[in-house]
Amino acid sequence: MDLRPLAVRTLVEELEQLPGVGPRTAMRLVHHLLRLPAGAQRLAAALAVAAEKVHHCNTCFLLTEEDPCQVCQDAGRDRGLICVVEDPVNVWAIEATAEFRGLYHVLLGTLDPLHGIGPEELTVAALLKRVAEGGVREVILATNPTVEGEATAHYLARALRPTGTQLSRIAFGLPAGGEISYADQVTLTRAIAGRRGMD
Amino acid sequence: MDLRPLAVRTLVEELEQLPGVGPRTAMRLVHHLLRLPAGAQRLAAALAVAAEKVHHCNTCFLLTEEDPCQVCQDAGRDRGLICVVEDPVNVWAIEATAEFRGLYHVLLGTLDPLHGIGPEELTVAALLKRVAEGGVREVILATNPTVEGEATAHYLARALRPTGTQLSRIAFGLPAGGEISYADQVTLTRAIAGRRGMD
Repeated sequence: MDLRPLAVRTLVEELEQLPGVGPRTAMRLVHHLLRLPAGAQRLAAALAVAAEKVHHCNTCFLLTEEDPCQVCQDAGRDRGLICVVEDPVNVWAIEATAEFRGLYHVLLGTLDPLHGIGPEELTVAALLKRVAEGGVREVILATNPTVEGEATAHYLARALRPTGTQLSRIAFGLPAGGEISYADQVTLTRAIAGRRGMD
Repeated sequence: MDLRPLAVRTLVEELEQLPGVGPRTAMRLVHHLLRLPAGAQRLAAALAVAAEKVHHCNTCFLLTEEDPCQVCQDAGRDRGLICVVEDPVNVWAIEATAEFRGLYHVLLGTLDPLHGIGPEELTVAALLKRVAEGGVREVILATNPTVEGEATAHYLARALRPTGTQLSRIAFGLPAGGEISYADQVTLTRAIAGRRGMD
């Protein structure tokens, strides 16, 4: 007999939609959440507010509460430099380094033909338009070093080449603090192939 | 520069309160949730409804939308048999077997003196009262086979002994489909000590 109250079953079903959450994790979360109903209410409110207020910037597709977003509005940024990433989380990670001072363009995914994700499902047309409008000196392709990320970078390079804009790809190699003996073969091959002169 | 919208930061903070969710998992969840704002709104609603409607049964402390709960209301159950468990999730697991036809008592935790959890923090007094009121033939102590679960079972056995009610502990041994050679030593010791005659 399934004794779980209807509200619990509904909550479990919704939690199971989250990535990495199966029936057991969902149950553990419910267990935690219903022990502290005030915490569950706070989470519910935070979710509702975020779902309502946060949307994609119309220019760069970063998640933002304003439009254009903070980055696109920032007069102190180099508007001739666009860093193309897969997702907003990548922008937040790059911003945390406080080193990059250009603009961004978020693709909102990668090409994945097997799952029906073509350029039309991403923000590729908007990127091409931004570059075609002029003033863009360099586009840095900063998709992830995965099969899909690489394929997407190559696709974009081909699509952007006719614009004459300088194209670059972020560097791949050993991570800081990494051990050569622990690195996988692809990383090591890239680290050697991408070696730079010391002067 | 932390570019995350305020609503995103608030949501991340709330998600990080969940068990097993660190900063990276929280970010991955936000990423997923904000891709599908309708799904985030559904989860928010499910959380709010569950936090508002679901509470503990005043008799057995199972999570329920009614009071008394479905089990306590069920006239077809053996009211002389009470199965004591740590949490509502344990009741749901036992009910899924459809074998047990007695009542339950949910402790809402285990004794944990190091973290300040004594009998007063659990529903021990309510259990003693239920048994003292009479009509209870047997109490099955079904806390988990962990250090805390065992300590709690022993504490309850001592507290319930004066009532004269029959006390039992669920059986421990090899799980169904288990391999003797893969079982840990404690499980194997218990499986041998708890052997039963074959007839």
